[in-house]
Amino acid sequence: MFQVTSHTQRELEMIRGNFKGKDIVSFDQFSTEDIDILFDVARQMKRIVINNEPSHILEGLLVSLLFYEPSSRTFGSFAAAVKRLGGQTLEILNPEMVSSVSKGETFEDTIRVFEAYSNAIVLRHKIPGAARLAAGVAEFLPVINAGDGNNEHPTQTLLDLYTLYEHFGRLDNLTGLLAGDALNSRTMHSLIRGLSLYKNNTLYVLSPQSLRLSREDMVTFQNRGIRIIEISREQDIPRDCHFWYWTRVQRERFRTQEAWQDAQKEIVIATPNLLDMYAGKDTILMDPLPRVESVDPAVDADERAVYLRSQIRNGVYTRMALLALVLGRL
Amino acid sequence: MFQVTSHTQRELEMIRGNFKGKDIVSFDQFSTEDIDILFDVARQMKRIVINNEPSHILEGLLVSLLFYEPSSRTFGSFAAAVKRLGGQTLEILNPEMVSSVSKGETFEDTIRVFEAYSNAIVLRHKIPGAARLAAGVAEFLPVINAGDGNNEHPTQTLLDLYTLYEHFGRLDNLTGLLAGDALNSRTMHSLIRGLSLYKNNTLYVLSPQSLRLSREDMVTFQNRGIRIIEISREQDIPRDCHFWYWTRVQRERFRTQEAWQDAQKEIVIATPNLLDMYAGKDTILMDPLPRVESVDPAVDADERAVYLRSQIRNGVYTRMALLALVLGRL
Amino acid sequence: MFQVTSHTQRELEMIRGNFKGKDIVSFDQFSTEDIDILFDVARQMKRIVINNEPSHILEGLLVSLLFYEPSSRTFGSFAAAVKRLGGQTLEILNPEMVSSVSKGETFEDTIRVFEAYSNAIVLRHKIPGAARLAAGVAEFLPVINAGDGNNEHPTQTLLDLYTLYEHFGRLDNLTGLLAGDALNSRTMHSLIRGLSLYKNNTLYVLSPQSLRLSREDMVTFQNRGIRIIEISREQDIPRDCHFWYWTRVQRERFRTQEAWQDAQKEIVIATPNLLDMYAGKDTILMDPLPRVESVDPAVDADERAVYLRSQIRNGVYTRMALLALVLGRL
Repeated sequence: MFQVTSHTQRELEMIRGNFKGKDIVSFDQFSTEDIDILFDVARQMKRIVINNEPSHILEGLLVSLLFYEPSSRTFGSFAAAVKRLGGQTLEILNPEMVSSVSKGETFEDTIRVFEAYSNAIVLRHKIPGAARLAAGVAEFLPVINAGDGNNEHPTQTLLDLYTLYEHFGRLDNLTGLLAGDALNSRTMHSLIRGLSLYKNNTLYVLSPQSLRLSREDMVTFQNRGIRIIEISREQDIPRDCHFWYWTRVQRERFRTQEAWQDAQKEIVIATPNLLDMYAGKDTILMDPLPRVESVDPAVDADERAVYLRSQIRNGVYTRMALLALVLGRL
Repeated sequence: MFQVTSHTQRELEMIRGNFKGKDIVSFDQFSTEDIDILFDVARQMKRIVINNEPSHILEGLLVSLLFYEPSSRTFGSFAAAVKRLGGQTLEILNPEMVSSVSKGETFEDTIRVFEAYSNAIVLRHKIPGAARLAAGVAEFLPVINAGDGNNEHPTQTLLDLYTLYEHFGRLDNLTGLLAGDALNSRTMHSLIRGLSLYKNNTLYVLSPQSLRLSREDMVTFQNRGIRIIEISREQDIPRDCHFWYWTRVQRERFRTQEAWQDAQKEIVIATPNLLDMYAGKDTILMDPLPRVESVDPAVDADERAVYLRSQIRNGVYTRMALLALVLGRL
Repeated sequence: MFQVTSHTQRELEMIRGNFKGKDIVSFDQFSTEDIDILFDVARQMKRIVINNEPSHILEGLLVSLLFYEPSSRTFGSFAAAVKRLGGQTLEILNPEMVSSVSKGETFEDTIRVFEAYSNAIVLRHKIPGAARLAAGVAEFLPVINAGDGNNEHPTQTLLDLYTLYEHFGRLDNLTGLLAGDALNSRTMHSLIRGLSLYKNNTLYVLSPQSLRLSREDMVTFQNRGIRIIEISREQDIPRDCHFWYWTRVQRERFRTQEAWQDAQKEIVIATPNLLDMYAGKDTILMDPLPRVESVDPAVDADERAVYLRSQIRNGVYTRMALLALVLGRL
């Protein structure tokens, strides 16, 4: 039913084995072959969604969505992914408020209770490491990390990479501009790690001086073989980027009002004017959303702005692919 | 499969075209032909529900229920409508609390995110005009207004009219009594507008002096050709009404305690005694609910009290019909 | 399709009649024949879940889950039960906050609204008697009590008994140890009532002196013919128990800090050491959860600890069986 063109049957079996029953905690657990098959599947998931095909791929299966932290976007994307595939969800938002947790149930016990009820757990949590902890606790089913604090959000990286892959037909030989909070942005770091799996990528990182990549991160990324060029002024933006990836600078990161004001002066926002000046006609503008003080809504009408077009939709397709593979239904 | 008796195939195609893909923002966008087909469909939806027939009409489709304001009744009715038709929902209650909105995502972006995830958006919001704004933002799918502040709640009017239509077999030549807050009641105003589409209807409007219809509203309604007679005392209630439509007087409307007390003296509540005195044996008693200080629970046992019988059920049937038509599945 | 071995067809019809359309308010309404067939059905439900068989038993049916009180565990269990059977849910958590209730809708009206929308109501409420009240209000559909304050939680008792039945193949001739708050524990009292339906059961009740069974409860239970032996010290635990049933002592039960401290000295927690000392190799350790200051997590690895293994899963199977029977789909 799923025709994955670029692999032999035996290769496919092996790669599927990399997903089936596995916890998805960190983006780093994926090989390029894993990503390859996942994107092949995601492309077919897109067809299901676009045609509103009733799918039975997850029929009879229950997926728990345990969201300890507000996120309507990621929550809605996973819920849509399960339901588009004919599966059902158990939806628990803020278990600390609406739950046995208020009677003192531990996080570990909540995980084991929902392990008993369902076939997979999608977990969002404020605390870094929560997903790995849950994966260790749940013995019999896969746990998928839907963001654990500022640690990891592997499906965000998958959808970002898929957006590039779908647009450019490859994940190597790309030049990108990453803007915003290079020091802290989880999504930016993950995207750098993701692109470092592929050859000959160059990333310009545009950020205020006080929000540059840490030296440790810089060394880590360079050791992975990706070319990173740090810039601080819009004049330094190169004109040949394949993509721009904008992230927001979170005010709460700053200890003093002064530090925030200093940084703010240097923040570059993606405006129609900035696109006119520095973007190519085929450059795409991405943003993991919400795009608060990152991308000017005046840019939305520009077809190159894909964040509320293909990028947000790709989140559903890649999560469908991941769920189907992890639940062993492909 | 759906046999709509009173129209030719060509007429049906045209009328269906009036629904498919359309935003449902205001009751005023419906013609009597639209209402006709919608009620024909609703009657068949009733059969599906009563027989618990598994329906596949919305199979493969996702409907987002974005409720920015608490309303278990309208929420439950739309959720039931989608699920009775074999569709699935994305349910987001209070997105301001449980969502990316807390990180500063705008209303418009939330709408576009759920546009990317689903096939229709049902929106409830405190702010008048929110539904029209959302309909403008969402380019590719229908937005259905499930109540935007004191502005519009078109599906409430549909279910009210359907209740009359089902009971009397027509929407013209009816005499009704509307009671409560004539100045502010959204549902009462909409029902008057709805009945003004049909010939020879007469409405008695019973309200405290301080809560009479505004002169503008009165002029507007009369220009539409409906006969309105304002009354303030229960003795003036005519004995030949086909229906009574009771609404509650909201205390928070009054600026002072005194004004509230003055109005309260004049509020007429529907009691068994009032029905005995003024209602006919075929008069039906409606209420959009909640019936707080509007209808005495002692009336519930009276078969003429339809608010918790057919009226609340008709909300599900009419919403099923609307969803099926708007999503192009009929 | 369901093969129930131990009854003739005519007996089955009668017993099914005991469920179909019935409100499930109290455990006491079940006869041993009812429990028999329910457990026969539950065993087959287990097969459906374990095999992830897509079931159509509740296809086309809607079950309202009205949870006025936080309980992710019971909520998730009922939601899973409905969805595993191919049914759909209307999920309303905390209707007082997210609902028409904030506009003053009464509890009775909320029940009647959801009666109009669905085929069954599962109700969780803080107030003892809420389920019976709801059952009286809802004329046309079954209401299932999912816990009403410290009054009743019949499906908890069903799953506890089923766990014993599945493990020992019988519900008579059992010796058990019940530990914790014997004075107040709803689940402990219900389990005693449940086991008193069967012959020759002996229960050791271990609790601090201040939390012993009340004299009234003691007399009531003994009149039902069950043997109860009260103990206060771990040294008095007999070595031949078939099962241990641990419950937590809720601090909020105590009027003074002193009373709490006194009781605390006497609380016996289930630890690996306690199992080594007093449990047999086939003794099972149960807990209705959450197991806060009742069972030490160090016991979890012991296969005899079934609370997060079979016991929690049995909640889904027994609720599936109950829903299917009550909704007349078997």
